[in-house]
Amino acid sequence: MPYDVVSIGNAIVDLIAKADAAFVAAEGMGTMQLIDADRAKSLYDRMGHAVEISGGSGANTMVGVASLGGKAAFIGKVGNDKLGEIYAHEIKVAGVDFFGGTPSPNLPTAVSMILVTPDAQRYMNTYLGACTDLGPEDVDPEVIADADVLYIEGYQWNTPRSKEAIRKAAGIAKQAGKKRALSLSDVFVIDSHYDDLTALIRDEIDILFGNEAEVLRLTGKPDFDSAARELTSSKMMSVVTRGASGAVVIDGGSVAAVPASPIPQLVDTTGAGDLFAAGFLYGYTHGRTLVNCALLGALAAGEVISHMGARPEASLRELMTKAGL
Amino acid sequence: MPYDVVSIGNAIVDLIAKADAAFVAAEGMGTMQLIDADRAKSLYDRMGHAVEISGGSGANTMVGVASLGGKAAFIGKVGNDKLGEIYAHEIKVAGVDFFGGTPSPNLPTAVSMILVTPDAQRYMNTYLGACTDLGPEDVDPEVIADADVLYIEGYQWNTPRSKEAIRKAAGIAKQAGKKRALSLSDVFVIDSHYDDLTALIRDEIDILFGNEAEVLRLTGKPDFDSAARELTSSKMMSVVTRGASGAVVIDGGSVAAVPASPIPQLVDTTGAGDLFAAGFLYGYTHGRTLVNCALLGALAAGEVISHMGARPEASLRELMTKAGL
Repeated sequence: MPYDVVSIGNAIVDLIAKADAAFVAAEGMGTMQLIDADRAKSLYDRMGHAVEISGGSGANTMVGVASLGGKAAFIGKVGNDKLGEIYAHEIKVAGVDFFGGTPSPNLPTAVSMILVTPDAQRYMNTYLGACTDLGPEDVDPEVIADADVLYIEGYQWNTPRSKEAIRKAAGIAKQAGKKRALSLSDVFVIDSHYDDLTALIRDEIDILFGNEAEVLRLTGKPDFDSAARELTSSKMMSVVTRGASGAVVIDGGSVAAVPASPIPQLVDTTGAGDLFAAGFLYGYTHGRTLVNCALLGALAAGEVISHMGARPEASLRELMTKAGL
Repeated sequence: MPYDVVSIGNAIVDLIAKADAAFVAAEGMGTMQLIDADRAKSLYDRMGHAVEISGGSGANTMVGVASLGGKAAFIGKVGNDKLGEIYAHEIKVAGVDFFGGTPSPNLPTAVSMILVTPDAQRYMNTYLGACTDLGPEDVDPEVIADADVLYIEGYQWNTPRSKEAIRKAAGIAKQAGKKRALSLSDVFVIDSHYDDLTALIRDEIDILFGNEAEVLRLTGKPDFDSAARELTSSKMMSVVTRGASGAVVIDGGSVAAVPASPIPQLVDTTGAGDLFAAGFLYGYTHGRTLVNCALLGALAAGEVISHMGARPEASLRELMTKAGL
C-alpha cells in the first residue's frame, strides 16, 4: 500500500500527570531527559495520578496524518509485554500501519513520564527501554520506498544501530526518489550528536522541522532572523514552529509565516510540534501550497494542546473541513 | 493505621472502549465474562481505541471511600510487570493503602476489556491472570483486624485458594469484633458457587450488597418484593441497588428506600455498584443513619456513571459537602 508518510521513531507509552512548578524545578527537569530504569522507578513513586496514552513523537505525527485522512505508517520497537500490545493496538486503531519488527525480547516497552505544569508546559522523562533495540533489520525497504515522505524523528538519532537504521531508510527513500524529512526533536539531540546529525542533515534531508530554540542551536545564530537568513541559503526546506507566535516556512528565497490557531484553552503543550508536522505533511503530500500546509499544521497543533496527551482526540479531518482548509 | 474499610478483591486494569450493540451481541457478551488469554488476544485485536484505567470492583469501592475522606486499604494481587506497577501506583495516589503480597511471578496483571454501548451499558471480559494467585498468605491479619469493615468482593470468590483467603480474613475480622460485608458482584458468581457462597453468607456476612438481579437469584424469588421479604427475616443487613430506581436498605424489619441521584448524563454504568457501596460504607463507618448512608451511595454512584471508567474523577468529598450530606 502506498503511503503519504512513513516515520521511524521511538515507540513510547506516555504516563502523563499534572505537577506543580516547584516539584519540576526541585527535580531539575528539562523539556526532555533520558532516564534509566532506577530513576524511572524513583520518579514514578513520587508522581501523582497519571493517565497512560500512547505517544512517541514520530508516531504522534503519523496518527495526526491519519486523522486528517492521509495514509501513514510507523516503524518503531516495543517490548514483548502488555504495554507493547497496547501500543500496537492503539496505533492500529488510529489508522496507522505499524511495522515494529520483532518486539524486543529483553527490554520493556518504553515509557515517558510527562509532568504537565499549570502553565501547560511539559517535562518529559523518558526511559527508552525496547526503543534502543531498533536496528536496520527493522526497516522494511518496501514500506520506505512506497511512501512519498520519510519522516525521521530526531530522538531516534540515538544509538549506533538506530543511526544505521535511519541511514538505511534515508538511502532507500533517496533511491526511490522520495523526500526525506527530519524533526530536530530537542536541543539536547543537537548537542549530543552535533557532528553526525549535521552531516545527516547536509547529505540526506529535504525538509527540516524544528522549533525556534532548536534552529538557533543548529545554526549557531543568536537570534531567529539570523538563523532564518542562514536557512534561506540551504537547498532544504525548513519548517520552524514558534509557539504562540505561529510558524515560518523557509523554502530557498521564499519565506511564509502563519499565526498560531486560536484555541479555547491551553492545557498541555505535549505533541504541539508533532501535530504541526502532521498537518504540514498531510498538506505537503496532497499538493497544498506551503501556506496552506502551515495552516493545517497550526490547526492540528491547536487541537492537541487543548487537552492532555499528544494524540488528537477530535477528528482532524472534520476540523480541517470546518476551518475551510 | 486503623482503617474504616479494607477490601479483598481482584486487582484489574480496565481497557475501556466504546462499541456498538451489534458487536457486543455478535460476540455473545454478558455483563461480565471470564475469558482466557487466547480469547483476550482475539477480542483485543477487534476492539477499537481503548483507555486504560485501573479498576477491580472492591478496589474501586476503596478508592471511593478514600475520595470521601475515609481510610481504606485493599488486598489484591498483580503480576510482576508494568501494568502491575501502574496498578499499585494509581491505587496509592488515590489514597488507598495497597497490600498485594508478592506480585505473581508467573501470571500477568489482570485486564478487563470493557465495551460500553451507546446506552451506557458495559460488557466486561476479564482475564484474571495474577488475581488467581491470591491466597491466604496474602491476607495480613493486622490490616484486617484494624479495619471497622471487611468488604469482600464476590468476584474474588473464585479459586479454592482465594476462598481460603476470604475465609481467613472473615475469621480474623469476626474475632476482632468487626463487620463483614460482601458484594455479590454478578449473577454468574452466585450460579457458579451457589452452595459455598450461600454458606459463607449465612455464617460470616453482616452486610450484603447486591443489585436486584443478584438478590433475586440468591433468594430464588421471582420478584423484588418477595426477595425483600425474605431478606427482612435475615439477621444481616442487605443493601440492594436498583439502577435508575435508586436503592433499598433492609435491616431486619426496617426498610429504607432512596432515589438515584440526578445526573447530567449517563455515560458508562461501569462501577455504579462499586461506588454505591463506597458511599454507603463511608457513611456506615462514620455513624450516619442508614438513609444518609444510602444517599451517599447514590451520590457516589451518580458521579461514576457520568463518565467513562469505574473510579471517581471528581472529589467525592467536595460533592458530598456541596450536596449537604
